[in-house]
Amino acid sequence: MRAYDIIEKKRDKLELSKGEINFLIKGYVDGEIPDYQMSAFLMAVYFSGMTDDECEILTECMLDSGEKIDLSEIDSVKVDKHSTGGVGDKTTLIVTPIVAACGVKVAKMSGRGLGHTGGTIDKLASIPHMETNLDKEKFFEIVKKIGCSIVSQTGNLVPADKKIYALRDVTATVESKPLIASSIMSKKIASGADCILLDVKVGDGAFMKTFEDAVELSKIMVNIGSRFGKKVAAVITDMNSPLGNAVGNALEVRESCEILKGSGPKDLREVSLVLSANMLCLAGKGTYETCHKLAENTLNDGSAFEKFKQMVEAQGGDISNFEKEDYASEAKIRHDVFAWDSGYIHAMRAESLGKASMILGAGRERKEDNIDYSAGILLHRKVGEKVNKGDILATFYSSDEYKCIDAEKIFKESVEISEDLPKLNKLIKARVTSQGIEKF
Amino acid sequence: MRAYDIIEKKRDKLELSKGEINFLIKGYVDGEIPDYQMSAFLMAVYFSGMTDDECEILTECMLDSGEKIDLSEIDSVKVDKHSTGGVGDKTTLIVTPIVAACGVKVAKMSGRGLGHTGGTIDKLASIPHMETNLDKEKFFEIVKKIGCSIVSQTGNLVPADKKIYALRDVTATVESKPLIASSIMSKKIASGADCILLDVKVGDGAFMKTFEDAVELSKIMVNIGSRFGKKVAAVITDMNSPLGNAVGNALEVRESCEILKGSGPKDLREVSLVLSANMLCLAGKGTYETCHKLAENTLNDGSAFEKFKQMVEAQGGDISNFEKEDYASEAKIRHDVFAWDSGYIHAMRAESLGKASMILGAGRERKEDNIDYSAGILLHRKVGEKVNKGDILATFYSSDEYKCIDAEKIFKESVEISEDLPKLNKLIKARVTSQGIEKF
Repeated sequence: MRAYDIIEKKRDKLELSKGEINFLIKGYVDGEIPDYQMSAFLMAVYFSGMTDDECEILTECMLDSGEKIDLSEIDSVKVDKHSTGGVGDKTTLIVTPIVAACGVKVAKMSGRGLGHTGGTIDKLASIPHMETNLDKEKFFEIVKKIGCSIVSQTGNLVPADKKIYALRDVTATVESKPLIASSIMSKKIASGADCILLDVKVGDGAFMKTFEDAVELSKIMVNIGSRFGKKVAAVITDMNSPLGNAVGNALEVRESCEILKGSGPKDLREVSLVLSANMLCLAGKGTYETCHKLAENTLNDGSAFEKFKQMVEAQGGDISNFEKEDYASEAKIRHDVFAWDSGYIHAMRAESLGKASMILGAGRERKEDNIDYSAGILLHRKVGEKVNKGDILATFYSSDEYKCIDAEKIFKESVEISEDLPKLNKLIKARVTSQGIEKF
Repeated sequence: MRAYDIIEKKRDKLELSKGEINFLIKGYVDGEIPDYQMSAFLMAVYFSGMTDDECEILTECMLDSGEKIDLSEIDSVKVDKHSTGGVGDKTTLIVTPIVAACGVKVAKMSGRGLGHTGGTIDKLASIPHMETNLDKEKFFEIVKKIGCSIVSQTGNLVPADKKIYALRDVTATVESKPLIASSIMSKKIASGADCILLDVKVGDGAFMKTFEDAVELSKIMVNIGSRFGKKVAAVITDMNSPLGNAVGNALEVRESCEILKGSGPKDLREVSLVLSANMLCLAGKGTYETCHKLAENTLNDGSAFEKFKQMVEAQGGDISNFEKEDYASEAKIRHDVFAWDSGYIHAMRAESLGKASMILGAGRERKEDNIDYSAGILLHRKVGEKVNKGDILATFYSSDEYKCIDAEKIFKESVEISEDLPKLNKLIKARVTSQGIEKF
């Protein structure tokens, strides 16, 4: 077997066999197939796509390249959740304690942020003394005792994906649905949960720019999960503008606490409840309506926030500062951005706002960059709201006034104010399961 | 500027600027852009194509990577010819002396063969003492004195193409028309001739499998040449079965001598005359009919063969053995293949016959392989002819009886004998010039 023939076959839109995909992935991980052949193959996949069978085999080969977490010693159903990445998306911090408070276990592995999108582990790291690099024993112990834990992904989980993703990242082959799907699903399946809820973001700030693309990606992922015996659903949610009002690690933890205490921005509360309800549904806690009610109760009765505090405490974190009524960012510089016009806000483009937040210090341009946990953006107005010229639109937090000036330029280019009333995007667009698609 | 953005732009089917293409080619030749980014780019070009402007710029960047031959010290018009590669295609050996005998100079640089297709330099190397690695002075001197010379391409001619072609060869990105066109045209333009005739092969044994593909490639090449101020035409010729009866280096030199002496296979004579006439036309020797007549005369009056002998002698070669009436291959083994059925020959697939010839020792599977100049295949019957079971279809020449057995298996699979009369392919299918296409 030769790598050349496999590249050629995929280039010519023919279906690859299990032996061929295995030869390629194993050969690449073992260093026998060079980067230049793998990158040509990945670009051929970008254009030619992959069949359902190929996606399943690719996922299996990636899965077989590393460790698989066996959660069987934790009794009852375990549910996992994955977001394809957005701006201001702190839902993992919220849905994990909600679902645990409803009695369903969440043993969650998360990643760090890169580029304009944030990562759950970075957000948690803004909590003083919070430990996310736990060993398996400690991780399992917390899940058993508290019902949930969020830790950093181990290096041994799907090493093939790590190597292939690094190559995709420099060869413009990230944006391929079969490659995205097998990358996400191999990690989710390796993480060992019984049920997986996928939050597929769509819009300006997401990988999937159109609803059709999001549906296609969802279908591929749901299909892969089902073939591996997992209960999987995907919820397609809007990512044209940031979720909630806070973008930046500590700011997002504070906002998560607000939601968990029953207040906070409406859009974030709505998405968090829909995701929680779907996770509970997958775990067999009843009809969707029952599950939604269960989730809502945990916000109203304080049990979700209690669960969150238990989890943070179990992982060594100190949440006290975030609980204060008069919480203020510890950032050195506080910089207000004023409305330059009167009217309705038509757009607050998520990708640009994510970039502005990264410039302020909240994100990484390169993997090795450091993060300023206190940096970020707090929006005072959201899409659809009315502003008057001179109103404060947003507050920036940073260590450096110059960074604020650079970020303000991007911010102003990404916000549209206009006289006429805007048409609002639906927050929750569809649900995809192995039974089909429901549009909302 | 980043290679990533250029790959992404081409992936998204956007047109690249001169600065971008230059950055990529120069960066790759200088070793600043790694193979894995270039191979992803090449695969993106395979799928996205290139505009006429991009093809021109790519050709120019490749051209600028190395030496350009200045033929201006050789007076009068210089004409060049290129074949996209076929099996049994020895027309360069024939048309070069024909055109020179008509008073038009040919300073020709040729390459070696690889895979199932042969190379002119290998064929010439089968002539005892023939020297094809001449320095520029000697090369020019022979062209000035005799009117033609065929030498090996220097290493300094388009080094960018050399490096890119080596990468295409292992990443399944050879078969891209803009890449083929810029590769060929950069070398032809760097070689310095005023007029360039392209012989674009189409069919089973050629890179271009369909007439439409051959037309498209021809148009791109003619367009590039015209933009560089060259007179260019492309003739599309059949390569479903080998050209002439001989496949293999010394056997092909012998057959070329036969044509030059006014005999030899009809198909080879026809293609050689059409190519010569087109070259003479480009050089301004008159109408096509006049030029065809001029070319034909040089075969009938012996002046073309005389010119060939002068050229070989000037390059140190000894043609005497090939002139003998009772010429016989010097190969140790002579192995006849007999017809296994009676009927008409419907197919003698060129690619398979090229591979069979390579197995006999006449070609290279890898660049570093040695060639047995005496090895090859002599066909006694061609497509369209009638055979009786037991007739000799072909004779194999090799150093090894086992190679003959392997080659015979491939040969038999590539030849079709059937009762009904076959429909013959047109040898000369079309001519493409900057004025348009003429189909025959």
